[in-house]
Amino acid sequence: GLWVLNNTSAMSSHVLNHSHQHLSSLPESDLVVQLSTSLKTKPDVVDFGTVFTDHMLTVEWNANDGWQTPLIRPFGDLSLHPACSALHYAVELFEGLKVYRGDDKRLRLFRPLLNMERMSKSAERACLPAFDQSELLGCIKRLIEIDQDWVPHLGPACLYIRPTFIGTEPSLGVKKPNRALLYVIMCQAGSYFNTELSLWADPKYTRAWKGGTGDCKMGGNYGGTLFAQLEAGSYGCQQVLWLYGEDHQITEGGTMNIFLHWINEDGDEELATPPLDGTILPGVTRQSILDLARKWHSGFLNSLLERYLTMGQLCSALKQQRLKEMFGSGTACRVCHIGSIVYEEKNLQLPNQDKHSLSSRIATELTDIQVSR
Amino acid sequence: GLWVLNNTSAMSSHVLNHSHQHLSSLPESDLVVQLSTSLKTKPDVVDFGTVFTDHMLTVEWNANDGWQTPLIRPFGDLSLHPACSALHYAVELFEGLKVYRGDDKRLRLFRPLLNMERMSKSAERACLPAFDQSELLGCIKRLIEIDQDWVPHLGPACLYIRPTFIGTEPSLGVKKPNRALLYVIMCQAGSYFNTELSLWADPKYTRAWKGGTGDCKMGGNYGGTLFAQLEAGSYGCQQVLWLYGEDHQITEGGTMNIFLHWINEDGDEELATPPLDGTILPGVTRQSILDLARKWHSGFLNSLLERYLTMGQLCSALKQQRLKEMFGSGTACRVCHIGSIVYEEKNLQLPNQDKHSLSSRIATELTDIQVSR
Repeated sequence: GLWVLNNTSAMSSHVLNHSHQHLSSLPESDLVVQLSTSLKTKPDVVDFGTVFTDHMLTVEWNANDGWQTPLIRPFGDLSLHPACSALHYAVELFEGLKVYRGDDKRLRLFRPLLNMERMSKSAERACLPAFDQSELLGCIKRLIEIDQDWVPHLGPACLYIRPTFIGTEPSLGVKKPNRALLYVIMCQAGSYFNTELSLWADPKYTRAWKGGTGDCKMGGNYGGTLFAQLEAGSYGCQQVLWLYGEDHQITEGGTMNIFLHWINEDGDEELATPPLDGTILPGVTRQSILDLARKWHSGFLNSLLERYLTMGQLCSALKQQRLKEMFGSGTACRVCHIGSIVYEEKNLQLPNQDKHSLSSRIATELTDIQVSR
Repeated sequence: GLWVLNNTSAMSSHVLNHSHQHLSSLPESDLVVQLSTSLKTKPDVVDFGTVFTDHMLTVEWNANDGWQTPLIRPFGDLSLHPACSALHYAVELFEGLKVYRGDDKRLRLFRPLLNMERMSKSAERACLPAFDQSELLGCIKRLIEIDQDWVPHLGPACLYIRPTFIGTEPSLGVKKPNRALLYVIMCQAGSYFNTELSLWADPKYTRAWKGGTGDCKMGGNYGGTLFAQLEAGSYGCQQVLWLYGEDHQITEGGTMNIFLHWINEDGDEELATPPLDGTILPGVTRQSILDLARKWHSGFLNSLLERYLTMGQLCSALKQQRLKEMFGSGTACRVCHIGSIVYEEKNLQLPNQDKHSLSSRIATELTDIQVSR
């Protein structure tokens, strides 16, 4: 078979047979494919998310007729009503996943059902319609197959897949949309960060809050972050480290979850990341790291915790040389060592990464799963 | 002249002469008009925001060349790259204002420079480019002139104007966009609320928070609210009353600012509304009510305050019969009496509106300014 999906919680892999797939509610329909007549040249190395493949998947929905026939068609502009609810009220969400070409030439999607599941939760929160997760995944696999020449032949390079779901109600009332468009585009992933990360932490900006949408991948979580991102840049930092509350809780960095590998206040070695309390994006890579670490648990980690972490605790650990490593995780950035944090007029230098670092070990293991298993 | 603009802080009116206008940074260019060859039939009564006029204004911007030539063209779909930053990261904002046809047949815009100013602030927060406010207003006036037959002949009916500003960067990096599109569409306003409002207040959802974007008219503030809006509907309520913090501060209702007319804790008659602390949208109608009330101040109001108001204070005032009236304000809803609030398993019945109510007096005065002065 062409496919390996890393789907199970243990992250072993299994091959799925392909079959024609459609979204639910229109069982008679089947995916329609319109192939492009002029294929693009594939550039060698490009920035993340700037060069797209030859085809895209689109599926329309409306409240009267439900889901329409899924369509794979040549990549091109969308035609949208100017009152479209995504453009005015950010009724929109997305996902991000990657497809790798394994050493055995087969295509590998890393735990794609976790993305489908999160996408369903985002859709519910955004008041966009439900969809059949496995049928959407089937459509995405068809799209990848058609553009499979775009999946790099040299690992760990890969192709980035962006499912997107927008409200297309053509009226200005602030309400649940009666029309929607689900579409999937794919682009060269490039390298997201080349070096270790520098972060900027200032409590004056907040990414998400209790009672909001910080645990969903909705567009509105991102538009408000650009301003802080620019300010981070003015301090020479690559990303924002988002804090929360009076005690400056560490929540997320830019587009990634955050992990601390340290000797905690009680003297135990611990891998810690903030808990999913509604303000944290439940990252697939975050979950996979927790799953891996649980497997390794008895080996070298005394303690594995989803717990609150404050800047005060980080600073104390740094001062007392209890911090081993801080790193971020995300589909785009994978596992990123964090080298420094600008916080309260200080530039905190964090411990260096080496091949024995936990982040190195995790990155190696993830690559192994993504490309070889 | 055709125009009356209610611009000054005292809300008296003055006539502006029309001249061709363009956005800054391209002083040689001028607005280009492409008239529609087939005008639509104008339906009699329609829901808010569903029927649009014959033309729209579009102006493109890119980081290399700045603002392009403003274009008035037949109303129609936008062609957008599927990676467009507005569709993924909600890099988008809007404004809402109304044009009235006065008793003297002249067209009246109500304090439009306040909308242009707020739009500029939203653009800065969203990392979209700056624009010349008076030149944009000039373009909007041209658009209204061309579609002036759409402005209702019977006041207080009016035409609603929706300036919209979106990032159109065609790549998936989360960053300040290098391309943007500013466009303006206009629609029949219809009647927004016909009856007195019922609100649903539950602290489990939060609209905005300190360090976020609640004081800007960015799309991301709205997409996350639909879910709570649906839950409000399940309680038979029309809108959400958004609370904030442990003490359940009253912030905003759905798409409006909130006012309390009451005898306060010290026994003074007071008109109060929450302060602009970063979580409150600085409404043009809100500001106008404050300006009017200041003018009337010595007459019948002892105290006019932007102050924090909690649900506890409201409940006490209700119990002790100190509440005279609660109402909302906004461009779409104008001034809306609030009849009831579902809160903590109770359905609070608020004092009725009559022609002596402050909201009635304010509504009459605003209509007078909007149509006659």
